[in-house]
Amino acid sequence: MSEKLQQIEIAFLELVKKMTSYNEAIGVMYWDLRTGAPKNGVEQRSEVIGMLASEVFAMSTSSEMESYLKELTSDQGNLSDVTKKMVEECQKEFDLNKKIPADEFKEYVILQSKAESVWEEAKEKSDFTLFQPYLEKLVETTKRFIGYWGYEGNKYNTLLDMYEPGITVDVIDKVFLELREKIVPLVKAISESDNKPNTSFLFNEFPKENQRELSLEILRKMGYDFQSGRLDETVHPFATGLNPGDVRVTTNYDENDFRTAVFGTIHEGGHAIYEQNISKNLIGTNLCDGTSMGIHESQSLFYENILGRSLPFWKNNYELLKKYSNGQFDDVTVDDFYRAINESKPSLIRIEADELTYPLHVMVRYEIEKGLFNDEIEVKDLPEVWNAKYEEYLGIRPENDAKGVLQDVHWSGGSFGYFPSYALGYMYAAQLKNAMLKDLPNYDELLEEGNLAPIKEWLTEKVHQFGKLKKPLEILEDVTGEGLNARHLISYLEDKYKEIYRLV
Amino acid sequence: MSEKLQQIEIAFLELVKKMTSYNEAIGVMYWDLRTGAPKNGVEQRSEVIGMLASEVFAMSTSSEMESYLKELTSDQGNLSDVTKKMVEECQKEFDLNKKIPADEFKEYVILQSKAESVWEEAKEKSDFTLFQPYLEKLVETTKRFIGYWGYEGNKYNTLLDMYEPGITVDVIDKVFLELREKIVPLVKAISESDNKPNTSFLFNEFPKENQRELSLEILRKMGYDFQSGRLDETVHPFATGLNPGDVRVTTNYDENDFRTAVFGTIHEGGHAIYEQNISKNLIGTNLCDGTSMGIHESQSLFYENILGRSLPFWKNNYELLKKYSNGQFDDVTVDDFYRAINESKPSLIRIEADELTYPLHVMVRYEIEKGLFNDEIEVKDLPEVWNAKYEEYLGIRPENDAKGVLQDVHWSGGSFGYFPSYALGYMYAAQLKNAMLKDLPNYDELLEEGNLAPIKEWLTEKVHQFGKLKKPLEILEDVTGEGLNARHLISYLEDKYKEIYRLV
Repeated sequence: MSEKLQQIEIAFLELVKKMTSYNEAIGVMYWDLRTGAPKNGVEQRSEVIGMLASEVFAMSTSSEMESYLKELTSDQGNLSDVTKKMVEECQKEFDLNKKIPADEFKEYVILQSKAESVWEEAKEKSDFTLFQPYLEKLVETTKRFIGYWGYEGNKYNTLLDMYEPGITVDVIDKVFLELREKIVPLVKAISESDNKPNTSFLFNEFPKENQRELSLEILRKMGYDFQSGRLDETVHPFATGLNPGDVRVTTNYDENDFRTAVFGTIHEGGHAIYEQNISKNLIGTNLCDGTSMGIHESQSLFYENILGRSLPFWKNNYELLKKYSNGQFDDVTVDDFYRAINESKPSLIRIEADELTYPLHVMVRYEIEKGLFNDEIEVKDLPEVWNAKYEEYLGIRPENDAKGVLQDVHWSGGSFGYFPSYALGYMYAAQLKNAMLKDLPNYDELLEEGNLAPIKEWLTEKVHQFGKLKKPLEILEDVTGEGLNARHLISYLEDKYKEIYRLV
Repeated sequence: MSEKLQQIEIAFLELVKKMTSYNEAIGVMYWDLRTGAPKNGVEQRSEVIGMLASEVFAMSTSSEMESYLKELTSDQGNLSDVTKKMVEECQKEFDLNKKIPADEFKEYVILQSKAESVWEEAKEKSDFTLFQPYLEKLVETTKRFIGYWGYEGNKYNTLLDMYEPGITVDVIDKVFLELREKIVPLVKAISESDNKPNTSFLFNEFPKENQRELSLEILRKMGYDFQSGRLDETVHPFATGLNPGDVRVTTNYDENDFRTAVFGTIHEGGHAIYEQNISKNLIGTNLCDGTSMGIHESQSLFYENILGRSLPFWKNNYELLKKYSNGQFDDVTVDDFYRAINESKPSLIRIEADELTYPLHVMVRYEIEKGLFNDEIEVKDLPEVWNAKYEEYLGIRPENDAKGVLQDVHWSGGSFGYFPSYALGYMYAAQLKNAMLKDLPNYDELLEEGNLAPIKEWLTEKVHQFGKLKKPLEILEDVTGEGLNARHLISYLEDKYKEIYRLV
């Protein structure tokens, strides 16, 4: 490698390190804002965050960055794999941000923030027509941006690729169809089943302090490292990775439904274990993060549902749960408990949906987004399209827009292409679990013994350590030997729910 | 004002705003590090802080800043008072940082960090000779820097001015001498008094959770705004003002000595009330901070000692204290309690000293620093000089260096000129209190009624609101009509301690 190129590489690495440092500072302030920052300081703090964020944006699109990227992409000869990937990530971001004329981007940012507050009002009043003109503008602007960015095959692919690199409409159409063809009849069969679980005992009063202790113990058993994290309380649970040595989780306590805290904690713990185990060598690079929304979600959903709502896991943890509860499970067998926490029924709100019906909620949104960006659906028709799809997929119809098309914040912020990741996460999780079983044939016994370390180590070796060094589909193929395959999730769901609802 | 100058002013204000934003981000991260950040993330977080701090340094010494300062100092015609002050502050910082050759400054930073770790070891081993060569280099370097910075009258003035603008050796020599001439005999009389307070009841077990509740109630009564702050627990209590809407305090709980938490909380609360009440108009400027170390300390010491260790304050709060304690005060009159919490006796460690003897600890350090920078004392003689001064002022002699010359961290970090501010704070506080009495002649009744709002409002009107818009001596003169006058502190101490020790 020429000396000049070497110097450029060093300068490039320094610039990226600076950007990640700024992002870490922003991350700490966000965490702080959500966990107890005093109310009167929030406005000024938001300005500070905005200032740092715009500095990062400026660095990512600077002429400095442009020239580094130019030099480092034209002669990659002796660059390390890490640097090559870093360049690729920066180039992607550079193109995304730079291809849009500055004034159009500025206008878009203003539109976003207006749209969010209008959406809030529209949701409160359950009146889609208020939000409609803003959504129309957001879709229109995004279409224009796709024009600047370019696309391959389908316009919507460009949006998908932002959250799930490598995933296309062709891939999703195929797996979603397969999934839907199996889930829809299963959901119907369940709703007609006479063997519904009894859930009455779930809602007794469970003291908050005990829920916290229980959450901490479960996190510890999962392998969450408290030297590299902490558990706090927030209204909406989240995990935030500041660096692999500081990945924090939060949960929420409902004294009349312990499931909120327990499964919320396990879910966020799954996200956090991912980021705690990214290779330390990637600290200070732009690769020290989950590789995609979908893979991130695969880790949280694996822990929350596949592991955390399984019978062997609760066989091991049922006594622990009883210890912290006020006797509400004393007369309940672990089998009945297992059936209760896996109750499934069609519902209107995505974030409250159970594991089986959840992918159907995602499919509704996917179909709509795809239609919008391919000029097959118009914004004004969304309430009707939405309601019809809910009726078709879930057999229920929202009585108003608040419980229908207005329920999610995503579109008001211009986040199109994000939803599919949630369902892809389920599929990745089931597919990874299938591969895990080959290496850990005693998986069920490990859960029953409470020995979760081999599972965490397997995930670290196969997924976590790489951060963004590997793309989602690269991980999937390296680990499972095949591309995305819906069959694994289908088998998992069929086996589990047919057994729970005695449909066999 | 010319259009060009107007544009320069706008650019200057923007640059300062950016610097204060970075400092606020650093402040949040420091607070976080000290209140519970996970251990494994600390190293990387320190790098992030270092990165942002060096950006602020770069901005403060940039050619951009240089040219703004040049333009804005040459033609001040129509600049607002706020801008003028901002320019003055930036110019001072620019000169401090720019007059030192870059390589010498770098060397100094390395020396500082080495010296701090050597000091730690030296203190642990109680061996001054280990630290001596580093302290010699620090003093020598600082002398050279004074050469670059220049000085008026006395070389040590340049150092004093960094922490207490406007204060000189002449001023301090005069007030410290007056103070010493009165305190030393008083301390002696007290040590010979037969009327020492009984303190045995102070040390009963006082549950931590109750101490926290009590601390919160006292902060509330003081007028600390919990919408603009929060109370956390740390080993060393501190207050940190991120912006006037977010000024946080911490305290420490000793279950066998409630005084640590209660007086620590009141002290930090005093600092915090200062910063919570700086005018909101100064947010985003470099004036939105306490005007000096000494004025800051005057606010914490006013609340902690003058108000917080007074009889009328405890007449109002004694029932509250009893409510939270485990009955330890049930047989103790409020008068005996008041005498106990004001026990005074000579001791070796500054930070554990009582209100009366504390200024003597500061004087020892002041005399030594002044001697060092005027070539009247050599570093190698410090242990002997130190011990002799303690014997002279306090009548006790340290048995080793750890309890003597090595006790404070300040010198190892190159902080010379800082100590006097602690004693100046006491004097400012007593002088301000004296002026307050003229406006609030019912001061004692207010305390007895627990009505502290008029006191806080008076301090806000006279001191807090201005931030750095006024210099310390400017505030003092505007409020009290005179310059620094040691008589007020002397009267306060004499009246209080003669009464407590029945010396009248």
